[in-house]
Amino acid sequence: MTSRSCLSIVLAAGLGTRMKSNLPKVMHEIGGLPLVGHVVKALKQAGSDRISVVTGPDMPELEKLVQNLAPEAHCHVQHERLGTAHAALAARSALASPSDDVLILFGDTPLVTADTIGKVRRALSDGADLAVLGFETQQPFGYGRLLTDNGQLVAIREEKDASDEERRITFCNSGIMGFSGQHALSLLDAIGNANAKSEFYLTDAVEIANSRGLKVVAVSGSEVETQGINTRAQLAACEEDFQVRMRNFALENGCTLLAPHTVYFSHDTVLESDVVVEQNVVFATGVRVASGARIRAFSHLEGASVGRNSAVGPYARLRPGAILGADTRVGNFVEVKNTTFEDGAKANHLSYIGDASVGSKSNIGAGTITCNYDGYLKHRTEIGAGSFVGSNSTLVAPVSLGSGTFVAAGSVITDDVDQDSMAFGRARQIVKEGKAKQLRERLKAAKETKS
Amino acid sequence: MTSRSCLSIVLAAGLGTRMKSNLPKVMHEIGGLPLVGHVVKALKQAGSDRISVVTGPDMPELEKLVQNLAPEAHCHVQHERLGTAHAALAARSALASPSDDVLILFGDTPLVTADTIGKVRRALSDGADLAVLGFETQQPFGYGRLLTDNGQLVAIREEKDASDEERRITFCNSGIMGFSGQHALSLLDAIGNANAKSEFYLTDAVEIANSRGLKVVAVSGSEVETQGINTRAQLAACEEDFQVRMRNFALENGCTLLAPHTVYFSHDTVLESDVVVEQNVVFATGVRVASGARIRAFSHLEGASVGRNSAVGPYARLRPGAILGADTRVGNFVEVKNTTFEDGAKANHLSYIGDASVGSKSNIGAGTITCNYDGYLKHRTEIGAGSFVGSNSTLVAPVSLGSGTFVAAGSVITDDVDQDSMAFGRARQIVKEGKAKQLRERLKAAKETKS
Amino acid sequence: MTSRSCLSIVLAAGLGTRMKSNLPKVMHEIGGLPLVGHVVKALKQAGSDRISVVTGPDMPELEKLVQNLAPEAHCHVQHERLGTAHAALAARSALASPSDDVLILFGDTPLVTADTIGKVRRALSDGADLAVLGFETQQPFGYGRLLTDNGQLVAIREEKDASDEERRITFCNSGIMGFSGQHALSLLDAIGNANAKSEFYLTDAVEIANSRGLKVVAVSGSEVETQGINTRAQLAACEEDFQVRMRNFALENGCTLLAPHTVYFSHDTVLESDVVVEQNVVFATGVRVASGARIRAFSHLEGASVGRNSAVGPYARLRPGAILGADTRVGNFVEVKNTTFEDGAKANHLSYIGDASVGSKSNIGAGTITCNYDGYLKHRTEIGAGSFVGSNSTLVAPVSLGSGTFVAAGSVITDDVDQDSMAFGRARQIVKEGKAKQLRERLKAAKETKS
Repeated sequence: MTSRSCLSIVLAAGLGTRMKSNLPKVMHEIGGLPLVGHVVKALKQAGSDRISVVTGPDMPELEKLVQNLAPEAHCHVQHERLGTAHAALAARSALASPSDDVLILFGDTPLVTADTIGKVRRALSDGADLAVLGFETQQPFGYGRLLTDNGQLVAIREEKDASDEERRITFCNSGIMGFSGQHALSLLDAIGNANAKSEFYLTDAVEIANSRGLKVVAVSGSEVETQGINTRAQLAACEEDFQVRMRNFALENGCTLLAPHTVYFSHDTVLESDVVVEQNVVFATGVRVASGARIRAFSHLEGASVGRNSAVGPYARLRPGAILGADTRVGNFVEVKNTTFEDGAKANHLSYIGDASVGSKSNIGAGTITCNYDGYLKHRTEIGAGSFVGSNSTLVAPVSLGSGTFVAAGSVITDDVDQDSMAFGRARQIVKEGKAKQLRERLKAAKETKS
Repeated sequence: MTSRSCLSIVLAAGLGTRMKSNLPKVMHEIGGLPLVGHVVKALKQAGSDRISVVTGPDMPELEKLVQNLAPEAHCHVQHERLGTAHAALAARSALASPSDDVLILFGDTPLVTADTIGKVRRALSDGADLAVLGFETQQPFGYGRLLTDNGQLVAIREEKDASDEERRITFCNSGIMGFSGQHALSLLDAIGNANAKSEFYLTDAVEIANSRGLKVVAVSGSEVETQGINTRAQLAACEEDFQVRMRNFALENGCTLLAPHTVYFSHDTVLESDVVVEQNVVFATGVRVASGARIRAFSHLEGASVGRNSAVGPYARLRPGAILGADTRVGNFVEVKNTTFEDGAKANHLSYIGDASVGSKSNIGAGTITCNYDGYLKHRTEIGAGSFVGSNSTLVAPVSLGSGTFVAAGSVITDDVDQDSMAFGRARQIVKEGKAKQLRERLKAAKETKS
Repeated sequence: MTSRSCLSIVLAAGLGTRMKSNLPKVMHEIGGLPLVGHVVKALKQAGSDRISVVTGPDMPELEKLVQNLAPEAHCHVQHERLGTAHAALAARSALASPSDDVLILFGDTPLVTADTIGKVRRALSDGADLAVLGFETQQPFGYGRLLTDNGQLVAIREEKDASDEERRITFCNSGIMGFSGQHALSLLDAIGNANAKSEFYLTDAVEIANSRGLKVVAVSGSEVETQGINTRAQLAACEEDFQVRMRNFALENGCTLLAPHTVYFSHDTVLESDVVVEQNVVFATGVRVASGARIRAFSHLEGASVGRNSAVGPYARLRPGAILGADTRVGNFVEVKNTTFEDGAKANHLSYIGDASVGSKSNIGAGTITCNYDGYLKHRTEIGAGSFVGSNSTLVAPVSLGSGTFVAAGSVITDDVDQDSMAFGRARQIVKEGKAKQLRERLKAAKETKS
């Protein structure tokens, strides 16, 4: 990575009215992270040491997000919407002390990669004064075409101004630009608004830089990574492109995905090699799965970690704080929340285990419920190693079972149980001979009366 | 919409032998509605005031469906299968008193839209005596080509009769036609069966109308909406096209679908704006979701309504009669049937709530089951506002809990509970020291003996 | 099928390092069966009476698999990896007594069909001495091109050796070959390793056979079925192609798949006609579904059979040994394992039924759990015909309920219940007036203290 300093300005003030949403456009999510977050993440990976985000007025949730993602970043408010150059100049205070590189990106093009940003920076370190990121497309209609002459980008020609020959050009403007710090503010300030909409357009920087005899170049990115988002349909399409990227990454790293296109990742999902993922699995944010584990069909994981050689699902739901050790099992229709499973612990069927710790090799029977909530506070359930909790048991927290304890099936456990002890909390069985037959006759009569 | 009267004849007599099914072809479903139902629905939307459906002999379920969908519609039985014109004439009694417009459509082309039907009607109101709906296709092979001359549709040329030049025509016959009421019966009656199969073909009407000097026009529809269904594979393909239409509609109306192609709609699903739908959600018939609600992954809804800002799922099943108010929560592995949740009520985990009402802000603990069925009759469970039902409770209906009641975890509740009272129905816990260890040793020995 | 004898040699020694896995490449699975298993299965269907599998050293699990799939097959170890011809000659002992036909196939091309293998055999029975399976492709780059002259396959030209004209050939070598038994060993022995990598290439057999004046032909297969697998991404793509094949097969046999691309089959799944499969269903191995049954959304079946007109799901999990009779129902969040449901039996909600038998027309209430495991051994639960097990019951095996029994909701049943008897195992309800209100106030205070 280059040792040059780098200021990046991310334009994120758009309302996104075509999204038909109350949320600012860049706050919509891809892979569980707001659009602008992807851009910030890629910039940090690409070594940008200063980041300025231009927001619209009254977007506190966006400012908060930026501070969380990059505490060193600054937000600048664009009070009027007078075009992209005007937006960039909302960060004038940052531009006043420029870095070696000055990048301008858009908060609504989330798939741009650190690699591609690196290419723009490399063009600058190789001597360009202005570098524009372009992409090849089969369908250039509507995009500004990049006109180059002997390595110099001489113009960005808008659709309406293009000649027939120029319209056949398939190398188009992504909007993303890099300036040498020396010229950035001066070029931006020189942009005027003598056009139909009286707006200040970033693309004019190309003409101005050419007129000043500066070196202007075009850099190649891909169409997928430079796509912008204006509608929910585009958001969904971009999400799918992001998922394809994540799925391929997993496959290349030695995971088996039985049906890759049915697996959904978050931006921060980590799967080690030789993980097997079955069909229809959703990885929400904050999940890590260790080598040799199998995530079975129809499972949903969030904020959870799964240890080596463990098996999860089918139909398992791991919620935040589910920490599974090695060789553990969480089976069908089981929900685990804020709970540690030590190595070899199991809960195979129809259970809710919340705010608990389950000791090594303990077995939680089908239908077990931890009552962790009393309507006001949450309480913990501790289960020692080597314990056996019988099916359909109810563990009323706060409660602690020692190691090696045995809870009889169908028990309600309200008090602590000592190590190696057996606990019952159920009624004795009573049988009434012949009563079922009588009851059937009575119920049948009742039904006939009613109908 | 035009004020002209409109009689529509829907041909639905086909057996559909290639479906390999006992069901009449048009009774197979798309988006939860039989094929013919889609056509009837589109016709009503397009303002057709009279609808005649031509059925095969002995199709009582089809006749019943038609009456349910359009009580004013008539069914006519085609006793022999002698071609499309013969089928249309099965509705001779309706044709005898023609409307301004007479449309003929097919019960197995379910995706035709009211817009497109409107175009055919507009052609008639603009003076056409006969209007044929065509479509552009990349693969015209096998279709009748529409030959036009100066706005007049002069012929429909079948593949086998077409010249090389005509075969290159990509504008083809969908089969759907509109007649001016004045000429409809006369044209249909003029169609003969002097052809290889001795059948009466509707398409012959074009030649006859031309020979009479009538105005015949072609109207443009799309290939997707005019596709017919003859096999299960075509049924599945048509279903997918229908789903694409529904997904796009939802996206355009301001819903977020995280993975649109994994969401399945019914023909009558209603989502308000700013609804978020996660991956792998099925909307069976009769669902309405209010603004701000989130339908989480792997949920299945049918005959249910979800109030503002509520969250459903993941893995929630809402069955008919589930009526959720605003700010409610129905969580994982929870089934709700014929039950009202007042505003703010919650059932987050592993529960079955059937034939019940849950009062405002009440909380239903994990593993709660309403016993609504005694083998003969269903009974109701009423839970007052602000109640707390402890985990793993069993509520034996008919039973009523007053407002502000508290049911201890693991209780079986068989009798009514007054307001603000606490109910227990569980055994006391007993602990036997050291017994678990003894039991383990005994079970271990038994296992060793057995193996 | 031909009466000729047939020896098939399956090359399966590859390590598959690009899979980044510890598993031998051919042990990775498609449709629940290892890759090599598909090839062996197709060979047996194509009437190959002798099968030799060439494995790498130290692949005991592969040898075991082969013995399971085809007890009559032999495994031969290739100790060094010196090319495909060298690999084939690892089976020299088999080749020494050749059959009429000798086929050489690859363990990593699992989609080759018995039909196509039959074509190769037919070429041999029609007099060819050597038959090479080719395929047409749009993207021939990298493949050996098949050069034919008047019906004779004169050469396989590798990419690097091909002229420009030859590169335009789109008919390529799949690698699969058939030899007449008379020439097989002699041709293989004649292959040398005078090439850049000093390896012995099977493809050289074509040139040698031509030089000997033998009849060499090319046979046409499809690109899909001859695709080989080297990476996890190719494995996933091949799995999807396999699924498409299975889905089409089901549709052609008169099943309705509401969304075919969301249904996953195993290699041995059997669906009778008029089965309806909803969205997102996984058929793991060993499943059979009888006519008229409906498999609802989000269900997962393995080693199970479903009787006529039964309904399974949504969200049902049938595990090995689940045998459902006719007209049965297994509903949402229900797991059934090693259990027989007689005709008309039902378990509709949130249950775990393992190691049990459920009599005809019995009804298992919501939340019922069979406790089949004591931590050491599994025990059985027997439920007689016409029984009613109330909701949230716990059946502690070994236990037996006679026919016509009634278990009260919320009961723990530990002892056998006689026919027509009613069993209770629950505590009586106690109500404490006003206590809920007091508790709320106390808990609220506790919460306030804590925060």
